Amino acid sequence: MRGVKGIWKIDMLQNDSPVRRARGRPQIRSDEETRHLLVEAAAQEFKASGYAGTCMGTVAQRAGVSTKTLYRLIPTKAELFTKVIADRICQFMLNVDEEKLSGLGLNEALERILVAFGDLTLNEETIALNRLVIGECERFPEIATVFYESAILRVSVAMKDWLTRQSRNGLLRLEDPTAATSMLRGMMIMDLQRAAMLGQRPPPDDAEIAARAKACAQIFLDGCRA
Amino acid sequence: MRGVKGIWKIDMLQNDSPVRRARGRPQIRSDEETRHLLVEAAAQEFKASGYAGTCMGTVAQRAGVSTKTLYRLIPTKAELFTKVIADRICQFMLNVDEEKLSGLGLNEALERILVAFGDLTLNEETIALNRLVIGECERFPEIATVFYESAILRVSVAMKDWLTRQSRNGLLRLEDPTAATSMLRGMMIMDLQRAAMLGQRPPPDDAEIAARAKACAQIFLDGCRA
Repeated sequence: MRGVKGIWKIDMLQNDSPVRRARGRPQIRSDEETRHLLVEAAAQEFKASGYAGTCMGTVAQRAGVSTKTLYRLIPTKAELFTKVIADRICQFMLNVDEEKLSGLGLNEALERILVAFGDLTLNEETIALNRLVIGECERFPEIATVFYESAILRVSVAMKDWLTRQSRNGLLRLEDPTAATSMLRGMMIMDLQRAAMLGQRPPPDDAEIAARAKACAQIFLDGCRA
Repeated sequence: MRGVKGIWKIDMLQNDSPVRRARGRPQIRSDEETRHLLVEAAAQEFKASGYAGTCMGTVAQRAGVSTKTLYRLIPTKAELFTKVIADRICQFMLNVDEEKLSGLGLNEALERILVAFGDLTLNEETIALNRLVIGECERFPEIATVFYESAILRVSVAMKDWLTRQSRNGLLRLEDPTAATSMLRGMMIMDLQRAAMLGQRPPPDDAEIAARAKACAQIFLDGCRA
């Protein structure tokens, strides 16, 4: 929670009108911190109630923030959804940052990427968000587009960029990096995610994600090594 | 439609009471043929209206069969759903029959299996059924179980059996055939199916399925060759 837990209670008590704030003491919580609380509350609310079932008032209440502040910072439900997705993808991007992978061998680097990808896609929250998007995309095509472009495509591009670099460095032989990326992604998560989405088995734990990443990296790299 | 189109009209006119049938002329359409009509109608209806939105009367009407006959042959919506799934899986099983694969080289045989898997999973009907199951599995967990056990697991077992045979014949080196099967499945379809499920691109055509199968087979087999 980025160390903002302590001021949560204060917000519950204060009436966050800008006039009162202007009166003297500095604003207790920055807008960025409040936005973070709202995004976490929205993620929980989407997971629990779906997209249609989530209402702005409940998100504000769950975050301990006034509705007025919610509307000032994130005016629509669609934007709330977009921000939840962006936040999760941002964490993935940090984990596969070029600097973090430099110095690692080919297998070790790919395992690291696949573990980050597994952490992103095989936890309960993402599984619930996937279910929400697939189940509600006919009613709300805009959330499908956000999910596809901001989550699926962004992650794919990051993975493809890494593969393309290895190919340029002469380590891999890839006829079609886009197709290869797509195959690698499916290898890592499809059946595990689908079984969890259908409620047929719990999401894999860290050890299973690590083992899967290792096995995938090995087969994939042996299959494409230059 | 297995050549039963011609008797469609007759069924609309006749009152299919068993008494009338017993009176003399042989039954015009066998129960098996009627069941086939009902399964096709149910598939279309599930695709168009979802699981909750499908009602028995509409399926009977779409099939041109009396509601009475529908309830006699397939008494519940859950059974209709199960029969739709079983019918599609049966077609896949015929396509990957051991006899059909015998005599083919390793790559060619795997490509054949992957094309059959792509044909099964990447057409509009299956994509709609996947969307239905994922979207409605919280309300109807029984359809998720049917889909998981009768479709996903049955197809997985058939693919795993083939991989295991190649491993026993010394052609492949597989540490964990179940995990390898799961990876192969995801490589072939995940991103293509997901993009179509989210309405972000049309399902792939035959040429794209064939190209994907070829590329998957190559990477996977090179990755596991003994």
